[in-house]
Amino acid sequence: MAVISSTANVEQWGIFEVALQGSVEGNPFLEVELSAQFRHKHRTIDVDGFYDGEGVYRVRFMPDTQGEWSYTTRSNQAELNGVEGTFSSIAPSANNRGPVQVANTYHFAYADGTPYKQIGTTCYAWVHQGDEMEKQTLETLRTAPFNKLRMCVFPKHYAYNENEPERYPFPCLTRGSSKWTGSWWGDEKSGWSFDFSRFDPAFFQHFEQRVAQLQELGIEADLILFHPYDRWGFATMDAETDDRYLRYVVARLGAYRNVWWSMANEYDLMRSKTMADWDRFFRVVQEADPYQHLRSIHNCFAFYDHSKPWVTHLSIQRSDLEQTNTWREQYRKPAVIDECCYEGNIPQHWGNISMLEMVHRFWEGTARGGYVGHGDTFLHPQDLLWWAKGGLLYGQSAPRLAFLRQILEESPTAGLEPIDGVTTWRWHGAACAGQEHEYYLIYCGRHQPARLTVNVPEDEEYRGEVIDIEAMTITPLLEPIVRGTSVTLPGKPYQALRVQRVH
Amino acid sequence: MAVISSTANVEQWGIFEVALQGSVEGNPFLEVELSAQFRHKHRTIDVDGFYDGEGVYRVRFMPDTQGEWSYTTRSNQAELNGVEGTFSSIAPSANNRGPVQVANTYHFAYADGTPYKQIGTTCYAWVHQGDEMEKQTLETLRTAPFNKLRMCVFPKHYAYNENEPERYPFPCLTRGSSKWTGSWWGDEKSGWSFDFSRFDPAFFQHFEQRVAQLQELGIEADLILFHPYDRWGFATMDAETDDRYLRYVVARLGAYRNVWWSMANEYDLMRSKTMADWDRFFRVVQEADPYQHLRSIHNCFAFYDHSKPWVTHLSIQRSDLEQTNTWREQYRKPAVIDECCYEGNIPQHWGNISMLEMVHRFWEGTARGGYVGHGDTFLHPQDLLWWAKGGLLYGQSAPRLAFLRQILEESPTAGLEPIDGVTTWRWHGAACAGQEHEYYLIYCGRHQPARLTVNVPEDEEYRGEVIDIEAMTITPLLEPIVRGTSVTLPGKPYQALRVQRVH
Repeated sequence: MAVISSTANVEQWGIFEVALQGSVEGNPFLEVELSAQFRHKHRTIDVDGFYDGEGVYRVRFMPDTQGEWSYTTRSNQAELNGVEGTFSSIAPSANNRGPVQVANTYHFAYADGTPYKQIGTTCYAWVHQGDEMEKQTLETLRTAPFNKLRMCVFPKHYAYNENEPERYPFPCLTRGSSKWTGSWWGDEKSGWSFDFSRFDPAFFQHFEQRVAQLQELGIEADLILFHPYDRWGFATMDAETDDRYLRYVVARLGAYRNVWWSMANEYDLMRSKTMADWDRFFRVVQEADPYQHLRSIHNCFAFYDHSKPWVTHLSIQRSDLEQTNTWREQYRKPAVIDECCYEGNIPQHWGNISMLEMVHRFWEGTARGGYVGHGDTFLHPQDLLWWAKGGLLYGQSAPRLAFLRQILEESPTAGLEPIDGVTTWRWHGAACAGQEHEYYLIYCGRHQPARLTVNVPEDEEYRGEVIDIEAMTITPLLEPIVRGTSVTLPGKPYQALRVQRVH
Repeated sequence: MAVISSTANVEQWGIFEVALQGSVEGNPFLEVELSAQFRHKHRTIDVDGFYDGEGVYRVRFMPDTQGEWSYTTRSNQAELNGVEGTFSSIAPSANNRGPVQVANTYHFAYADGTPYKQIGTTCYAWVHQGDEMEKQTLETLRTAPFNKLRMCVFPKHYAYNENEPERYPFPCLTRGSSKWTGSWWGDEKSGWSFDFSRFDPAFFQHFEQRVAQLQELGIEADLILFHPYDRWGFATMDAETDDRYLRYVVARLGAYRNVWWSMANEYDLMRSKTMADWDRFFRVVQEADPYQHLRSIHNCFAFYDHSKPWVTHLSIQRSDLEQTNTWREQYRKPAVIDECCYEGNIPQHWGNISMLEMVHRFWEGTARGGYVGHGDTFLHPQDLLWWAKGGLLYGQSAPRLAFLRQILEESPTAGLEPIDGVTTWRWHGAACAGQEHEYYLIYCGRHQPARLTVNVPEDEEYRGEVIDIEAMTITPLLEPIVRGTSVTLPGKPYQALRVQRVH
């Protein structure tokens, strides 16, 4: 019997895993085919397995339904073929609400129906920094407001990020230079070579441990599958290697409920990839992933065409967040603005906005029906920047984003939809999103009206609260709000008005 | 002899005027033609005269050259025809630098060559408020930083501006309602009627006195010839009346050196005018004005096509001042952003930005090679808003705009041109304008780099100063700046860096 171990009981949306003993002969990564068919009542789900080194083969599976499941493996290797088993999927533990999916066209929800209100952050290469700093990152995240983190699979070669990682996803054949060359276009390999016909299981074992730790913290892992910041050659692999890499990542990580697939960061900077490559990557991931985790792709300049059917949501870099509702309407999908500049003080324009500007952009995007991402980029004597490496947050926006998250958690479960005409001047109105007849979140941004006419629907009564996004105060208005009420506001910038139905 | 009076000596760019006694019979506004030909050496300039009521006819002329001038009148009335005279044009007094003209494609200069660095403001209906408040406005302007003021010829019917003026440009036949109806599209006349075949000289005598008082204060008067905020019918006159009105205004006011012609405010809100009307108005003014004062037109939504040959400069409403250099390039003319929202606290979005936001927008437009306009719109118990009526400034931006003006006065006379690539990141760089090899004004806006690499040309040395646009401080950097110098900055938003050549 080839079975080394298998999970007996597994939570709904937890990970079932069966490990099988097989051959180490030849190149199992290329030569051994392994999959399993999982069955629950009339349903069958086919899942790819993967080779984890030292003769160990694994199949992972995330059951989406409680009850009895059975499975049968298939392989071109006799000892891995036809292995059968059963297991029970039991009730999920607290904080296990399943994977996040698109809900209500423009929003997200966990599989159990709980709305997911994204407050994202970015630590591109945090898993490549060594145990000490990686633990520090997890410690920081434990009390931070973020419920999504963008992170790269491949190590990163970029300004403030020259340190060599401990592990690589492929076996290293020739070590090259660790020097930052000033090029991050994937043109310069600096002498490195790898055996792209094999993966390094140790790399992925470590990587998936970090993904699991994020899951424990309730943080979605937006996994960036390709990126241009490369000195090793990972940005310029051939198509066959690219596709095999994608399938391997999906086979290993697809069963983690907190995984999102980001085809790339700044895909349009990767000179060696064509648009057809990006389309193909989406399809490879889509076909390999039995759970249909969220899929998107992040731009530098031009948006990828998010209307393509394999894209589940926007994942964009833009600073003009007052356009958020336009992007939503254009693609009819949730608008996530992962990058709208980061709080920090580095020379680079994208990494030196103030705390208040970072918080303002979150509110602007939120009050236009979107979801925004954070980064922290402060100069550090050892180049330890959160955005690149994790570690500590040096900015002051996090508590304000926690405050915003609390407000979002209290907002309608259906999500915040842009609503026009609630404030006096239709074309020039303050940003407003909510649910008609129920809830309006009006954000005045850089504007400072001392009075604002609120046009809630006729014959309805609301209560209003003034929110100071920087001071994090919520001040109830004494008078009720009906159609045409002229509300008195503090007459200073960065205030919001929350208007909730009373009757 | 018909001559009542004539100016003997007149400053270059001052006003020569000859007043003639004529008939009061019939309708002199329609029936009497009067012009004069002015001669200096080989040059001749034809100028229209105008009827000023009570049998008095005037011809005004602004000599642009010192020396002896002569003139001869022409008229279809014998007593006004063939009147001849001479006068001397003498050296201009201090602060008389002549009319402002376009200089160096994207900039302005007085006729004597002195650069004109525009810091504009807006008091649309200040001349319609009565003597007491009008004097208060002039008193405020005396110490304010503004060297241009946008003002309407016609009275204004709009929110915060319902009060009836003392005078009208045409004789009133029927007085109507003074009530603000909520409509400012020029659709509702509210019972008013006027004799559009005549002008009311008292109105214009008062109006031009105010223009002259602005001139004494060194303030250019950007005269708004049409606007949509109307309850009297001035926005819906017929074409013949429109054109006659334009020619009358030019005949009366063209000799004032501080006059600019603005065809309209928010021309695109005037439903009764077509684009052909606007084109014609430009040509009427262009043909009537012997001095070719600056001409433009101000939009609400869509820009008028400023590339048309009769437009001298852009006069636009937009809040995205980071586009200023794009607009400059698009039209190859000076970019004046008259309206980018006003400092204030009224409910209307366009009138409630903070002091810092107002000042920021001035700097953003400036550091992209343009010129910006100010307004002050604070709620007032008697609706006395500077932007509409003048009076007092309630905002805090004026001293900061004085500070900016001082910096502009010290900047290169050729003007500030957008310069790319001076800071590290080409596409995302801070706004920068200046003159290559001489002067760079870098504005970081909402960004807060603690270090910034400055790429001045090779083999040149510069000195740097950090400018805090809110605190109004200029702090010299100790180290000189050469190509690639990494400058240390305060790491807070709203800072500029002035870089000037040493050798």
